[in-house]
Amino acid sequence: MAKIAAFGEVMMRLQVPGYDLLSQSNTLHYTFSGTGVNVASALTRLGHDGCLVTTLPENPIGDAAMSFIQKLGIDLSFTVREGNALGMYFLENGFGPRPSRVTYSNRLESSFNTASPGIYDVEALASTIDAIHFCGIALAMNDTVRQHITSLVEAVKAKGGRIIFDCNYRPSLWGENGYKKARPYYEHMLTHADIVMMNEKDAMLILGMQTDETQPHEQLQELIPRVAHHYNISLIAGTHRSIHTNNTHTLQGYLFKEQSFAFSQPLTFSVYDRIGAGDAFVSGIVHGEYQGFSPEKTIMFATAAAMLAHTVTGDTPMSSEHDIFQAMTASLNDVER
Amino acid sequence: MAKIAAFGEVMMRLQVPGYDLLSQSNTLHYTFSGTGVNVASALTRLGHDGCLVTTLPENPIGDAAMSFIQKLGIDLSFTVREGNALGMYFLENGFGPRPSRVTYSNRLESSFNTASPGIYDVEALASTIDAIHFCGIALAMNDTVRQHITSLVEAVKAKGGRIIFDCNYRPSLWGENGYKKARPYYEHMLTHADIVMMNEKDAMLILGMQTDETQPHEQLQELIPRVAHHYNISLIAGTHRSIHTNNTHTLQGYLFKEQSFAFSQPLTFSVYDRIGAGDAFVSGIVHGEYQGFSPEKTIMFATAAAMLAHTVTGDTPMSSEHDIFQAMTASLNDVER
Amino acid sequence: MAKIAAFGEVMMRLQVPGYDLLSQSNTLHYTFSGTGVNVASALTRLGHDGCLVTTLPENPIGDAAMSFIQKLGIDLSFTVREGNALGMYFLENGFGPRPSRVTYSNRLESSFNTASPGIYDVEALASTIDAIHFCGIALAMNDTVRQHITSLVEAVKAKGGRIIFDCNYRPSLWGENGYKKARPYYEHMLTHADIVMMNEKDAMLILGMQTDETQPHEQLQELIPRVAHHYNISLIAGTHRSIHTNNTHTLQGYLFKEQSFAFSQPLTFSVYDRIGAGDAFVSGIVHGEYQGFSPEKTIMFATAAAMLAHTVTGDTPMSSEHDIFQAMTASLNDVER
Amino acid sequence: MAKIAAFGEVMMRLQVPGYDLLSQSNTLHYTFSGTGVNVASALTRLGHDGCLVTTLPENPIGDAAMSFIQKLGIDLSFTVREGNALGMYFLENGFGPRPSRVTYSNRLESSFNTASPGIYDVEALASTIDAIHFCGIALAMNDTVRQHITSLVEAVKAKGGRIIFDCNYRPSLWGENGYKKARPYYEHMLTHADIVMMNEKDAMLILGMQTDETQPHEQLQELIPRVAHHYNISLIAGTHRSIHTNNTHTLQGYLFKEQSFAFSQPLTFSVYDRIGAGDAFVSGIVHGEYQGFSPEKTIMFATAAAMLAHTVTGDTPMSSEHDIFQAMTASLNDVER
Amino acid sequence: MAKIAAFGEVMMRLQVPGYDLLSQSNTLHYTFSGTGVNVASALTRLGHDGCLVTTLPENPIGDAAMSFIQKLGIDLSFTVREGNALGMYFLENGFGPRPSRVTYSNRLESSFNTASPGIYDVEALASTIDAIHFCGIALAMNDTVRQHITSLVEAVKAKGGRIIFDCNYRPSLWGENGYKKARPYYEHMLTHADIVMMNEKDAMLILGMQTDETQPHEQLQELIPRVAHHYNISLIAGTHRSIHTNNTHTLQGYLFKEQSFAFSQPLTFSVYDRIGAGDAFVSGIVHGEYQGFSPEKTIMFATAAAMLAHTVTGDTPMSSEHDIFQAMTASLNDVER
Amino acid sequence: MAKIAAFGEVMMRLQVPGYDLLSQSNTLHYTFSGTGVNVASALTRLGHDGCLVTTLPENPIGDAAMSFIQKLGIDLSFTVREGNALGMYFLENGFGPRPSRVTYSNRLESSFNTASPGIYDVEALASTIDAIHFCGIALAMNDTVRQHITSLVEAVKAKGGRIIFDCNYRPSLWGENGYKKARPYYEHMLTHADIVMMNEKDAMLILGMQTDETQPHEQLQELIPRVAHHYNISLIAGTHRSIHTNNTHTLQGYLFKEQSFAFSQPLTFSVYDRIGAGDAFVSGIVHGEYQGFSPEKTIMFATAAAMLAHTVTGDTPMSSEHDIFQAMTASLNDVER
Repeated sequence: MAKIAAFGEVMMRLQVPGYDLLSQSNTLHYTFSGTGVNVASALTRLGHDGCLVTTLPENPIGDAAMSFIQKLGIDLSFTVREGNALGMYFLENGFGPRPSRVTYSNRLESSFNTASPGIYDVEALASTIDAIHFCGIALAMNDTVRQHITSLVEAVKAKGGRIIFDCNYRPSLWGENGYKKARPYYEHMLTHADIVMMNEKDAMLILGMQTDETQPHEQLQELIPRVAHHYNISLIAGTHRSIHTNNTHTLQGYLFKEQSFAFSQPLTFSVYDRIGAGDAFVSGIVHGEYQGFSPEKTIMFATAAAMLAHTVTGDTPMSSEHDIFQAMTASLNDVER
Repeated sequence: MAKIAAFGEVMMRLQVPGYDLLSQSNTLHYTFSGTGVNVASALTRLGHDGCLVTTLPENPIGDAAMSFIQKLGIDLSFTVREGNALGMYFLENGFGPRPSRVTYSNRLESSFNTASPGIYDVEALASTIDAIHFCGIALAMNDTVRQHITSLVEAVKAKGGRIIFDCNYRPSLWGENGYKKARPYYEHMLTHADIVMMNEKDAMLILGMQTDETQPHEQLQELIPRVAHHYNISLIAGTHRSIHTNNTHTLQGYLFKEQSFAFSQPLTFSVYDRIGAGDAFVSGIVHGEYQGFSPEKTIMFATAAAMLAHTVTGDTPMSSEHDIFQAMTASLNDVER
Repeated sequence: MAKIAAFGEVMMRLQVPGYDLLSQSNTLHYTFSGTGVNVASALTRLGHDGCLVTTLPENPIGDAAMSFIQKLGIDLSFTVREGNALGMYFLENGFGPRPSRVTYSNRLESSFNTASPGIYDVEALASTIDAIHFCGIALAMNDTVRQHITSLVEAVKAKGGRIIFDCNYRPSLWGENGYKKARPYYEHMLTHADIVMMNEKDAMLILGMQTDETQPHEQLQELIPRVAHHYNISLIAGTHRSIHTNNTHTLQGYLFKEQSFAFSQPLTFSVYDRIGAGDAFVSGIVHGEYQGFSPEKTIMFATAAAMLAHTVTGDTPMSSEHDIFQAMTASLNDVER
Repeated sequence: MAKIAAFGEVMMRLQVPGYDLLSQSNTLHYTFSGTGVNVASALTRLGHDGCLVTTLPENPIGDAAMSFIQKLGIDLSFTVREGNALGMYFLENGFGPRPSRVTYSNRLESSFNTASPGIYDVEALASTIDAIHFCGIALAMNDTVRQHITSLVEAVKAKGGRIIFDCNYRPSLWGENGYKKARPYYEHMLTHADIVMMNEKDAMLILGMQTDETQPHEQLQELIPRVAHHYNISLIAGTHRSIHTNNTHTLQGYLFKEQSFAFSQPLTFSVYDRIGAGDAFVSGIVHGEYQGFSPEKTIMFATAAAMLAHTVTGDTPMSSEHDIFQAMTASLNDVER
Repeated sequence: MAKIAAFGEVMMRLQVPGYDLLSQSNTLHYTFSGTGVNVASALTRLGHDGCLVTTLPENPIGDAAMSFIQKLGIDLSFTVREGNALGMYFLENGFGPRPSRVTYSNRLESSFNTASPGIYDVEALASTIDAIHFCGIALAMNDTVRQHITSLVEAVKAKGGRIIFDCNYRPSLWGENGYKKARPYYEHMLTHADIVMMNEKDAMLILGMQTDETQPHEQLQELIPRVAHHYNISLIAGTHRSIHTNNTHTLQGYLFKEQSFAFSQPLTFSVYDRIGAGDAFVSGIVHGEYQGFSPEKTIMFATAAAMLAHTVTGDTPMSSEHDIFQAMTASLNDVER
Repeated sequence: MAKIAAFGEVMMRLQVPGYDLLSQSNTLHYTFSGTGVNVASALTRLGHDGCLVTTLPENPIGDAAMSFIQKLGIDLSFTVREGNALGMYFLENGFGPRPSRVTYSNRLESSFNTASPGIYDVEALASTIDAIHFCGIALAMNDTVRQHITSLVEAVKAKGGRIIFDCNYRPSLWGENGYKKARPYYEHMLTHADIVMMNEKDAMLILGMQTDETQPHEQLQELIPRVAHHYNISLIAGTHRSIHTNNTHTLQGYLFKEQSFAFSQPLTFSVYDRIGAGDAFVSGIVHGEYQGFSPEKTIMFATAAAMLAHTVTGDTPMSSEHDIFQAMTASLNDVER
């Protein structure tokens, strides 16, 4: 099993129970999550040593976040405490044609986003891990965070570790002309990355690549090999999602490695909690890589992991390797007892 | 924006959480609702000045009802306090083939249904509003309530305000030979009404009209113009609903105005809380009228408003104009963040 | 062990959780209670065969009441179903200087209060029971209920059963000049009763008796023997309560039988749910009588039973004989494990 | 109406609310159930006198079980109290492709499974009942339980009562080579049984019967008549279930009696709580038999009863005869009010 | 009745239910409060027209705050919407020797604290109100907020309205050397104020006044008249609080007006929710002034109002004039029914 | 800071919320606790490296226990997984004169109590820790557990680590003639122990020591020095508790070391959750020892830690060193904000 770090902000998720609006209810359920937590947790459940690199505030909110993340079994040796603000988001569940609604609060002032330069023990971390995961959300934050990312990337590469990067472009974080602003930072990450999550839209919108194809599947097959070649990336993977009217989604995963594509079966399933599914996917890819699965098995594993993450409460994937294998092979089952 | 009153009873809705029966649970969630509350609230959310004309008891239950309705931003200048009983209904949620179950309590003795003659300041109200909404539920109550309705109708018409009437025939309230009993009161309302919610069944069953057509759609197209002409009604609207086995409904709205019909697209969607959807529909029609939408836009808007009301907790529509426009145009979306 | 019936209304108790007001909360906890339920339940827990004589509505609310009362192990052979209304009361918990608040709803229209004449199988009941309990609350309702009481009293006396009567005068139920209105009905009950719950205030206010004494304790000792003599009552019992600022009450019980008084120790204790304590007390007296306890043991037992009823959720006493003996003898204990 | 006993273990069901895992939540909802409770409750709701034969511990957990079962209106005259352990199971709800998970605790040590020989008053029971129900779960427990079953079977047969047996084979309870171990006990039960629940798989796997047919429907039609003939069983019934991806199941019931089959329509419906549906089915069969329904009506009734049991919270069927008739005939209905 | 505005920030109060720590629980109850909300609500319940002057964000959190404040019946004509941040505080309830803990979040970035200059319609407000309330918490925020205060003070004074000022010094908001920093702003407010809440500690610490007295009561009697004279304040009031080990507090109010002091009786009572009691006190003082109560009655009324505010869930006083009069006169009462 | 292990069973605590009985409620809150968890957690919060030595089942219940204990930050390197049963206890909260009630379930079959010989890596553990804690509860279980204890004691002593032993005699676990049965095992532990928790009752009842003194304080002062001398124990500590009628307890700690006693002030405080307070006390003693506090400071610290543990939800102490110092010095404080 591998030791894999994930760098990213921890946020407090404050969810209105059931289908009430924030203006109808008086109760919130809270958990703590973020891409880093989700990836480190998912890998820990798969048997790896998942390690979270982040900054949490030195107050009772930070204590609660620590407790929550410890509960997941994540290694917090490289989590530091500083400042007194944690980013938050309020989640109102949608139903059918009414979409879910997310309202952020206090994000830019958070301890993570204002962490002091040099706060992370980059050298010690780089010496102990096999790989480190970053995502486009952290990249969007500010120069301070990007500085942390750069120093981590360099230290890990220097020690021979691998860089995993999930493009995960969020328009609201980059603002107007966002793709243009984002491009240099993404190019910098892709140049160093070994394993990348993206799809054809990222190639066109962020990297500005062009194609005559009009269908996503064809665009993907043209553009991803070009990206892999251009930035010298060993593995690129991602998913195509379609959303149906009866609260089911269909997900198909792809994986490009050593000049060829592998595709998962398309999986269709009911959705309970969509947030965090992408993090389950990347964790599945990483697990497949470190276990030496064939590309076909890896992409099926990762897509099934993503599917299961839609059926679990909260952002954080909770499935074991056994659960995912079962979901890959099993037909629908009656209750087990 | 218009100032629009709604006249009607406020009831306490006592709902068993989840899918338990009243004999299985020990907890109830309560809200306060009724056609008047729902219409006044829906119009307030659409930017109008929604005003509720009702009577609430002078006790802690009435206080709680006041607080709940104030929370919705409804103007309560014409809500009076008298007596000590509020109508209640217990709601046990059905699931799939098991229907929801409503048990009424204390309705006939309620402050609203026993309010003293002359209790509402009819003249003052008529001077300040553009229109007033009534529905067939209040009409079914007793002579006292019908007396209040008549004096309100006359005063508002005298000041040039418009009368909105939702036929909303409830068989259980009129009892045996109900249609026959109800007809004179309905005819009286239709004679004064400017905007009416009804469909072909109301025309046949309540008004006793006849047609050789056998399909609802054809019956509608024959009968509604005749009703509009006979009672001199400027706008008639309504919906056809079909219910499917997988907990989805299909709704299609129609609007008849200036001798021609407009139909919405049929909308199919998952249902969370069906009660109050009709009130969202009428509010959408009224909004379209006061905003000067085309009939096609109005009927699509009202039907989308009704659809969204099925996805919201409680009887009371909670959607803004923006939400409804989004639902009219959008395909199904992933979570917004 | 004896078979003892209790006659009385079942009400739905709708309690706001915690210390919120009805206008602050959105949740209610519901149980079903009433003097009859409480006495039948308390006696059942003490090993007797408690039987409830009442009328419940034929609807889901009545079903829920049935289920709740069955849960307590009460014999419902003489409970009938008719009509469709159940009396309700809303309870907002007070805290310290803020008193609890009870709001009744739908009481006069209830199935119990409007039950058809002759609905109870009086003869069958009288043949199977040793005693029957009534209280002043039912007596206050209306002539129909009083008619039921009279026919039950007569039938039970005819079969040699005993009549237990709890004076329990509620000013709000009798209205203006209530004591004067109530007196003939109370005198009628006292004439037939064998075991009576009352204190000196009842003697003075309801029965109009006079005394020169000014202190409750002295008034009690003068008046109760006169009542016992005048109405030929074998046993009279009751309590004196004082309420302290730190949420504790003190209760002292008395019992008058065969010309002499027995008094319990005064018990001081924290109060969790005060409603129903009087019903625990009368059940303790009845249990003592049927077990042949000495008057001193009976009054101590009944007062301890009343004390424990203040510490239990809901109106209904839940203590076993073992629990009450333990409370009579034990000092305060650490957790038992 | 008939008096029908059911023999079986009562377990405490500890369910994580919503879709959380046991490691994510901090709350459990508990009820008490088991095949015996479910069958006795379902028959009680259908108007019969359902009686439970079981052993519950003499401690607060046993008290809570008693209260819960009393609430269902079940006759507990033949329920005894002994020992201090109740079997438990923890239930984590699945969602879509993630299956529900059941974890048993404390089962083998339970009061029921260790009840003293002769603890049940077999003769008194046999004298008062029309029939008794057993199932394959109790049969799997241990020799002591099987001894109780045998003495009950013999006593009831001796008094002319009928034996109802639900094969209900649970692989996890019989362990390795389970079918082989189970066969003699099953054959013993079938030899005495009058009404049996089973399908073609039971015939093949437990009884070792063989057929050249490959489709379940054909296997059923060949094997069930052979079973009925061989063991001299008057009625055999069962269901075929298929599970779909959108959280709906399809159920088709069959009934074999007097040499011919009756089949229900296949019913497709959304599933809320699957556990206990088989017990609703057998209760429907028994009810049809005792009401003298035609085989066609009985199998449709039982299958509709099973369908409704999937829509009710908890293991225990809660439907009345009226509810089931409505479900047999009704199309999908709008809310009833 | 008077029309009285209150200026102040609205915060979201996120309270851990029961006595769990934030790191133990997963649920929060939320309300919206702040000195302005509390004072406007308390005055509204006392029959005045309470009006809130504040800025709320234009997002779902702001919508929820609006709904909550509307529910209290507060006039929101002068509440504006701008920005997207609301101040929050997390509340963990203490128990006995373990103190409650408050953690602020997102306060400095809040819409209120960053509201644009000129955002409030100062002239329109000044024309319609009789008085306006400010407190030391808003004064501590920043220059922008102080600018708003100054322009409101000037406009209201110009129109002849009264200024109410609650000193309410919070050390954590002013930081190091806080008293020195705060003094000029406090002096500015006192120069304009008509009704002031303070006590001897404020005089000494904020205003730097000196006295040879050593006991609070004597210090108060020396310093308050000097403050009233120096700043030409017509009425000064405040309380002395002592806290006891059994979860009770004692509160004694004082009022200085027209050269003489009035003191309330000391009130001792159990405490449920201490926050907001000071706002109930000032509202009681203002009510007494506008009702023309004697100083003795006013101070007793205000102190009883403060006492009751300790017994109510949430920050916001919920008592009516009737409740407060009852608390002033009543001894401890049994449950009212 | 020290590395300290604690050996003991983890149990699932299933608590009825509020003051309901198990037969009144339908909900349980669950946590996981035990002396080992509590001590390891308390020491972790005080800054030490707390390590738990136990066996948890390999099923979802064991997973939930792991998650809960990880959340507390405890080192689980020496926790093993085997078997499939976890001990449980149900807790019904008492109120005032009604005592709390604990019902155990499944204890003897638990994974901990049936763990295989040699399952713990005794040598590795002994090499890494400074001390290990045992208590009388584990000692009472069975020979297998005592075997584990013995091998741990020997290995730790051999490596120079210290043995901490809490006598904690539970009569219900040892059964009839329990003191006599227990004595040899206790003597064995005392012979090896360095730090012991006990009081004069343990000396008399378990060890059979005699004294002419009749008061606990005098008995303590005579017997404890004899115990310390006889078994060569460097530090003995314990508490005297008295329980008052208004839900407060008084606790006084004592510590005997180097031939002299230190006593804490008696602390009186309201009690919220009494379970686990003894574990907080021993942790305070150990912390004082490892920090080099004076005996007077240590005993005051430990007693204050025990007091705070009575105010925290759940069995597990949650206080930091800062919290405890504050409780040692502070008077009662108003809310901190």
